[in-house]
Amino acid sequence: MKAIVLQGSFGLSSLAAVDLADPTPSASQVVLRMVAASLNYRDLMMVRGQYNPRQPLPLVPLSDGVGEVVEVGPNVTTLKKGDRVCPIFASSWLSGELSAAALKTTLGGPLPGVLSELFLVNEASVVKAPAHLTDEEAATLPCAAVTAYNALFCAGRVSPGETVLVQGTGGVSMFALQFAKMAGARVIVTSSSDAKLERAKALGAWETINYKTTPDWDKRALTLTGGVGVDHVVEVGGAGTLTRSLRATRVAGTVSVIGVLAGSAQELNVLPVLMRNLRLQGVMVGSKAMFEAMNRAIEANALRPVLDEKTFGMDEAKDALSYMEAGGHFGKIVIRL
Amino acid sequence: MKAIVLQGSFGLSSLAAVDLADPTPSASQVVLRMVAASLNYRDLMMVRGQYNPRQPLPLVPLSDGVGEVVEVGPNVTTLKKGDRVCPIFASSWLSGELSAAALKTTLGGPLPGVLSELFLVNEASVVKAPAHLTDEEAATLPCAAVTAYNALFCAGRVSPGETVLVQGTGGVSMFALQFAKMAGARVIVTSSSDAKLERAKALGAWETINYKTTPDWDKRALTLTGGVGVDHVVEVGGAGTLTRSLRATRVAGTVSVIGVLAGSAQELNVLPVLMRNLRLQGVMVGSKAMFEAMNRAIEANALRPVLDEKTFGMDEAKDALSYMEAGGHFGKIVIRL
Amino acid sequence: MKAIVLQGSFGLSSLAAVDLADPTPSASQVVLRMVAASLNYRDLMMVRGQYNPRQPLPLVPLSDGVGEVVEVGPNVTTLKKGDRVCPIFASSWLSGELSAAALKTTLGGPLPGVLSELFLVNEASVVKAPAHLTDEEAATLPCAAVTAYNALFCAGRVSPGETVLVQGTGGVSMFALQFAKMAGARVIVTSSSDAKLERAKALGAWETINYKTTPDWDKRALTLTGGVGVDHVVEVGGAGTLTRSLRATRVAGTVSVIGVLAGSAQELNVLPVLMRNLRLQGVMVGSKAMFEAMNRAIEANALRPVLDEKTFGMDEAKDALSYMEAGGHFGKIVIRL
Amino acid sequence: MKAIVLQGSFGLSSLAAVDLADPTPSASQVVLRMVAASLNYRDLMMVRGQYNPRQPLPLVPLSDGVGEVVEVGPNVTTLKKGDRVCPIFASSWLSGELSAAALKTTLGGPLPGVLSELFLVNEASVVKAPAHLTDEEAATLPCAAVTAYNALFCAGRVSPGETVLVQGTGGVSMFALQFAKMAGARVIVTSSSDAKLERAKALGAWETINYKTTPDWDKRALTLTGGVGVDHVVEVGGAGTLTRSLRATRVAGTVSVIGVLAGSAQELNVLPVLMRNLRLQGVMVGSKAMFEAMNRAIEANALRPVLDEKTFGMDEAKDALSYMEAGGHFGKIVIRL
Repeated sequence: MKAIVLQGSFGLSSLAAVDLADPTPSASQVVLRMVAASLNYRDLMMVRGQYNPRQPLPLVPLSDGVGEVVEVGPNVTTLKKGDRVCPIFASSWLSGELSAAALKTTLGGPLPGVLSELFLVNEASVVKAPAHLTDEEAATLPCAAVTAYNALFCAGRVSPGETVLVQGTGGVSMFALQFAKMAGARVIVTSSSDAKLERAKALGAWETINYKTTPDWDKRALTLTGGVGVDHVVEVGGAGTLTRSLRATRVAGTVSVIGVLAGSAQELNVLPVLMRNLRLQGVMVGSKAMFEAMNRAIEANALRPVLDEKTFGMDEAKDALSYMEAGGHFGKIVIRL
Repeated sequence: MKAIVLQGSFGLSSLAAVDLADPTPSASQVVLRMVAASLNYRDLMMVRGQYNPRQPLPLVPLSDGVGEVVEVGPNVTTLKKGDRVCPIFASSWLSGELSAAALKTTLGGPLPGVLSELFLVNEASVVKAPAHLTDEEAATLPCAAVTAYNALFCAGRVSPGETVLVQGTGGVSMFALQFAKMAGARVIVTSSSDAKLERAKALGAWETINYKTTPDWDKRALTLTGGVGVDHVVEVGGAGTLTRSLRATRVAGTVSVIGVLAGSAQELNVLPVLMRNLRLQGVMVGSKAMFEAMNRAIEANALRPVLDEKTFGMDEAKDALSYMEAGGHFGKIVIRL
Repeated sequence: MKAIVLQGSFGLSSLAAVDLADPTPSASQVVLRMVAASLNYRDLMMVRGQYNPRQPLPLVPLSDGVGEVVEVGPNVTTLKKGDRVCPIFASSWLSGELSAAALKTTLGGPLPGVLSELFLVNEASVVKAPAHLTDEEAATLPCAAVTAYNALFCAGRVSPGETVLVQGTGGVSMFALQFAKMAGARVIVTSSSDAKLERAKALGAWETINYKTTPDWDKRALTLTGGVGVDHVVEVGGAGTLTRSLRATRVAGTVSVIGVLAGSAQELNVLPVLMRNLRLQGVMVGSKAMFEAMNRAIEANALRPVLDEKTFGMDEAKDALSYMEAGGHFGKIVIRL
Repeated sequence: MKAIVLQGSFGLSSLAAVDLADPTPSASQVVLRMVAASLNYRDLMMVRGQYNPRQPLPLVPLSDGVGEVVEVGPNVTTLKKGDRVCPIFASSWLSGELSAAALKTTLGGPLPGVLSELFLVNEASVVKAPAHLTDEEAATLPCAAVTAYNALFCAGRVSPGETVLVQGTGGVSMFALQFAKMAGARVIVTSSSDAKLERAKALGAWETINYKTTPDWDKRALTLTGGVGVDHVVEVGGAGTLTRSLRATRVAGTVSVIGVLAGSAQELNVLPVLMRNLRLQGVMVGSKAMFEAMNRAIEANALRPVLDEKTFGMDEAKDALSYMEAGGHFGKIVIRL
């Protein structure tokens, strides 16, 4: 089978198509023929060597995709040939809280990713894709969508009528916009692009803020909420946003810390956290149980992920990552396999 | 001021218009000029002497209404003349859990109800009515709507994509339908009337079951959910529904016990409760904090309560209660004051 | 290997020692040499055919025990020979909520139980026994202790200073007493035997009630709590206790429904459930994650399970069950293997 | 009546005994004769002008104390002369979540504090003192004890068997030690003084770390927990502790941010928060409902607050604050009134 492999050293130019041996399923495993994969910013950082500089190479990158079961191991009971499934982000995080052990089983590093024709996986570590979604759409769910779902409904508990602020129009933020709206909340979206904000509005944003023309976006968020502050911020972490996020949040509100963009350190003003009973909640994707609950919600509400207008082929993986790097996209970038 | 008073003995025929002294607000009180009130089944039972046979008379009935602040006490800080507010159901239940003390402060028995031209109330015991609602609509919120909100989002925690079954098309059930749908859930409605089920469908019901033509409605609910069962039942309690409700609920699901219709005792099959980890949760309206959270949700989603086509005048209170007794209504019955 | 098997028909007299083939572990399985097992009332009902009359025979009974790993399958990573472990009650309930699927994987029916010299189990379906416990003590944990832990700290959330009422002095109740006390709660124990109540007192009970001499034990519980009611009842369900349990519980309190003693139906007075915001919560043992959390608590507090003075040998399984049937025991009945 | 008042300018030297008019209770108010007060670090910062430089003067300082009801307003129903009560920290925070409004009603700034012979307060804004406590002990509860209780059992949910790390031996930390132990948790205490650590050990600490001799106390905490990390850190915030607190915490654990010592800004390493699903939770004292729940726990467990060996008189308020400033104390510093 063919796979795209990062080898030799980190960097986009180290990606190459390689021929690997076809996998054979053991007792409780299945083999998927991958049909589509999608990009997360984490994948770009991983390839560049920024996410985990000690990641051993070679590595098949990308955590998110969808495939068809083409072979089942002898003890498999929950899947059959032809099932369309998405591998979960952290193979061993089935339900309950995140554990240190589960953190070592994430796809696209340290475990092999999905950018290959065939993918070997435990039957327990996949979920069925919602039937109404295209392959491209289903491929976007495992990381970005589950992260947004977890932030809003598991780690956080957004109630109808609450106000959620999402930063930018990246994958997690657009899922958060759709999910929060689906749950009866109002959503404020920030971006530096009026064109992107217009598209966010079309997706259901209640209000939008261009943080280039309104650098004090936290004050604007306070004004929009009658001086109270928003209930929940989905913080994806460009430089220096955390302080403003805390200011934009109401007393006893929550800031979900999600982004890996921000680099390692930010200044945290501890006093408002304390004095206003704020909660900062790290959100690292989510469990299989959350993925399944999310899929029920996506199906019940006939939700469709937002895809970028451009799609790439397997041999264009490098181009796809460069396209993400350039930052002009809106919605998820998909690679067809 | 004029008030409708239940005096002498229980029964609809004991209701009479009476002239009472105008109230004067003390330190933290306000006087409301009531503009509309709405009926709950509890009011009918109260008047008949079935809700609390030891309720002292005379009593001004009805817990739900909306009024305009016409006079404010010397220490009032949060309200001003002209504010349009709804008194909360249990005057002293402001936030947190229900307490035994709060149970003694419910309107329309034991405390005086709202079926009077003027109503004296502590400033802390009212909430502002959502601006987009008519007076008739706002009058329906304190009891039925808050009960449904509490059952779904406070005592229970309905998530998007979950399935909620509501029994019948009474006030609580129709609010539960609207609220559950607003929060991204799917709703199954049961009724003995196809005409009412059609209207429920128009309000957003996912599926409907006529329990006359399908007496095994619990089995139908299981079928609709792929054999799993619904996540949440809003049990309003006609005779013998509880056993079916438990059967219709998924493992680890919740049955909210709401209705006062059922009479005092039902047979409870304890084993399924135990073996399937079910939760039965009594829901007795809700706190002021819940009312305010609900109003935010109603405003954010531009929700409008469902009113019956018929409205009554203050002197027609008896007719209004008889109309409810007959059971042909759909949506809340309102009395204009 | 030798096993005690229920064969032919239900009933204690159908138990017999049988020689079965030694098990061989596949990929992720281990073989345990069982060293001790303990009895639950469920085992007695199972053998009598009362728990599940459709349970296929033959069946190795008993869900609870402890054993030593004597053989490991090729892919086993978390266990090694010599580890002392307890199989979990429902093999596939690892974490999160109970599911219908997990209910089909309970030991001692429908799956084979632990009353055998060797026991084959998935490595994921065991927990390490607390080091400070004897084998007899460790054998009592999987069902009774986890049930009590789940009721108090997972399905319920007992806080320090709350009052917990436990019915009788059976296995679940004595664990509930010890756990609730460990967590800073006050415990009321009921029993028909003053001698047993004295022993409960020695274990830390705050107050005791002899329900033979004080049949209105619910009123006594109200008196003991200043008229407020207890926060939590661990309801193990003899005939007609449920109504009193509801009366003994404070507004917004919880009754955990645990027992299988009660037979199938009880009268439930729905009105107090509703009017006092009570919660009835079915509790069906618990997950592996709960078992592990419980073990941490047992270790941190150096807790020791309460054992009956009598212990039985493998060939005395019938006698052990008869001894439980007679009801004179106090604490867990253990069979040494 | 006599009161100690901060007037003219900030600073310990601006404290003076002043004669003020005796208060008269209005409708729902009571007058307390204060018998004891206790110091929090917040009081010291307030007097120095560091807590809120815009606090208007004159100000009666100190939030914590206990007094006897000596006069009741006309509508008071829940208190009578002779009751021994503690005013709550934020007069209008009765239950539920903290609100911006409640933050403006804290005693000892912005509202008048308790360092006066008589204290006027709404009947709703006090709680009865636990009967088994001396006045000195009861005076320590409103701020430090409620903060610790809220952090462990309301904002956080410490379970039996979990490990809690408390920083230093100040008031909040010693209450957290006692409360966590009462709830079945294990407690690690850090301090720069071996003598203080010995006393913490006597109070029930499981392990202690001298952070002077073991500056890498986070690594020591990891070692003590088998590499896993502690479940909960009570972060009182000396310079640079936050980063170590995050490192010492297990995946999906909680750091309660409590201290006002830290100055306004710290470096926050965002990545571990995100990647390890950590929660930072600001904790600003707590509500009246929390105070009452805490008192039940204190009574049920016969807990006694830890007092410093030194006690001061009303005219020694300055000395008491200087004594706290010097930092040699262990346990709460009390002023007798």
